[in-house]
Amino acid sequence: MAKEQARGSRNQDITLDPWGTVEVKDYDRLLKVFGIKPFSDVMPLLKKAGMEPSLHMKRGIIFGHRDFDKVLEAKAKGEPVAVLTGFMPSGKFHFGHKMTVDQLIYLQRHGFKIFVVIADAEASIVRKIPRKEAIRIGVEEYIASMIALGLDPKKTDFYFQTSRGTSYYRLIQLFAGKITTAEMEAIYGDISPAKVIAALTQAADILHVQLEEYGGYKWVVVPVGADQDPHLRLTRDIADRVSDIINLTRPASTYHRLQRGLDGGKMSSSRPEYTIFLTDEPRIARMKLMKALTGGRATAEEQRRLGGIPEACTVYDMDKYHLMQDDELSRIYNSCRSGSLLCGECKLLAWSKLEKFLDDYKRRLEKARDIAWSIVDVPKF
Amino acid sequence: MAKEQARGSRNQDITLDPWGTVEVKDYDRLLKVFGIKPFSDVMPLLKKAGMEPSLHMKRGIIFGHRDFDKVLEAKAKGEPVAVLTGFMPSGKFHFGHKMTVDQLIYLQRHGFKIFVVIADAEASIVRKIPRKEAIRIGVEEYIASMIALGLDPKKTDFYFQTSRGTSYYRLIQLFAGKITTAEMEAIYGDISPAKVIAALTQAADILHVQLEEYGGYKWVVVPVGADQDPHLRLTRDIADRVSDIINLTRPASTYHRLQRGLDGGKMSSSRPEYTIFLTDEPRIARMKLMKALTGGRATAEEQRRLGGIPEACTVYDMDKYHLMQDDELSRIYNSCRSGSLLCGECKLLAWSKLEKFLDDYKRRLEKARDIAWSIVDVPKF
Repeated sequence: MAKEQARGSRNQDITLDPWGTVEVKDYDRLLKVFGIKPFSDVMPLLKKAGMEPSLHMKRGIIFGHRDFDKVLEAKAKGEPVAVLTGFMPSGKFHFGHKMTVDQLIYLQRHGFKIFVVIADAEASIVRKIPRKEAIRIGVEEYIASMIALGLDPKKTDFYFQTSRGTSYYRLIQLFAGKITTAEMEAIYGDISPAKVIAALTQAADILHVQLEEYGGYKWVVVPVGADQDPHLRLTRDIADRVSDIINLTRPASTYHRLQRGLDGGKMSSSRPEYTIFLTDEPRIARMKLMKALTGGRATAEEQRRLGGIPEACTVYDMDKYHLMQDDELSRIYNSCRSGSLLCGECKLLAWSKLEKFLDDYKRRLEKARDIAWSIVDVPKF
Repeated sequence: MAKEQARGSRNQDITLDPWGTVEVKDYDRLLKVFGIKPFSDVMPLLKKAGMEPSLHMKRGIIFGHRDFDKVLEAKAKGEPVAVLTGFMPSGKFHFGHKMTVDQLIYLQRHGFKIFVVIADAEASIVRKIPRKEAIRIGVEEYIASMIALGLDPKKTDFYFQTSRGTSYYRLIQLFAGKITTAEMEAIYGDISPAKVIAALTQAADILHVQLEEYGGYKWVVVPVGADQDPHLRLTRDIADRVSDIINLTRPASTYHRLQRGLDGGKMSSSRPEYTIFLTDEPRIARMKLMKALTGGRATAEEQRRLGGIPEACTVYDMDKYHLMQDDELSRIYNSCRSGSLLCGECKLLAWSKLEKFLDDYKRRLEKARDIAWSIVDVPKF
């Protein structure tokens, strides 16, 4: 609680807006130190590329990018463009994952080719998840969820890291000569054979779609949380360093704010009490939501007088990332700030949306699981 | 010279025989400490498997093995057996390489399937040899030389580490989770991404021929110098450790004494003055041979009185490893020991054999180079 109160007080000295979060200053620092560009810069280019900004873009959830301007310019000229993203097949699919998938769906509808890698090699060799389990989770939790959410399986290349073709693997081998132990240690803390392969496989995931046999997509964007930037930087360096052997373009990336867990901490499968899974029973999901940390005051009287702090509220996060349309979100924001909407009532608003979503999703998921098994190359070993 | 004299004196306290070398004690230690078994143990099994001992076996050049008894027993039962060996495509093909190829030819003639890997991934990522150069050397120096020496290209699977199929590469990825940083450091001194990939690729080379798509050879022997044993031990451990995912048999291995360079030091492409290449001009080869370190005494008088020391002689090595038939070798050995054959004359005996060999070889090599390019999958990048 002390940490949360600290956040509440830090809240005073930053500009508040319906699309902001309390961590905005940390993200600003990322932009300055690591050379990530503000996403607002590319907003004008979106139109030129025939795209309306997505909900995440409008709401500042996607806050930064590298070279996404180049991708949009290529798209505006009619060149093929692609997205690659990866999921670790461990645990269950939650709303943090959904946010990334929503980005994929948006980009797919705007003509981007979608590549989704199930990082089962990494799951098995780094996290020691048994092979069969990693494959089952990959198909039934991740691929099926993405299809259930609306990603078109016919236009999406879902693949496992352990069943790709020769030239994909060849990249892993090639890249090994292009990174140093020090670079590995800077990202991973220490180095091990497992981490080396995981890092190189990840770089191959991002870069292999540029090879002719995978479609030759030179303009590729990788949507990630800001914490993933070291991997992107390394992959960009690798792309430069192999130029004597093969011509690879640096991947572009967009950066989103990670949705917090319902206690304000990390949203993660390993923290199920603070993380809503898309397959949660309604009773369970409702209970998690009702117990969620809000931006409310100590008493109802105080809250009516001072107003709540939506930026500190994890229920507001659910509203903003997933549940509410623009007009609904503005209404909630303003009535919270003014003190007219108290937390209990606000949670019920969120729950009514969430309940319907979970119910719809459950039915879609069942069909999607059959589709998922039928479309993906299941690894042999 | 001091080192050689020391060798000469150490020579006093070991049993001498025409097939022995001065390093026999070091090899004995290897047998005791690391669990390598004496090759003499499997001599009776050779016959059961329908094989006469090879020249290298009879002469004690092949001195040890791991599990070769199991391979011979499988062969005796009519099961398929295979050999895998690898060459680093750097420098030129020399008589140290020829020794290994002679073993392959012997085993091929006795029905072993032969796999030869050109370790171009390792050459490129660890030794930084440019890709095109590694490929050219692999084909024109190594594969062509093996064909020129008599390896049947129709019955040999020559391949580059960078152009194998998916399941081969998949093994590399799989193995990454099965070895530790400490194990890598014990073998390589330190760890780097390049060394990790080189080590794992080497393990995949040895083990992948057990996969159905490469013939499903469960009984595989790897002929190596004793210095390569750490790699074999690691590969055997890896085979054990993946048993939850894939069933791989431990590879067998045979161990040979490395032929020394002409100064008694290491034979290596990087020491061309002490290493005879199979493509050396006769004038050059003759000069190297004539300057070679022998087991001769300080003066002719002394040598006639005490006899020479063939075990210390690098020309005798050439005779024993490559040039002489059994009866010729015995004659040379005895007349050297007795003092009746002096070094100059002995070198001329060796040269007359070598000259003829190099002349024949030169003609065979030219044709073999065309064949080599036509049979191997040249890596794309």
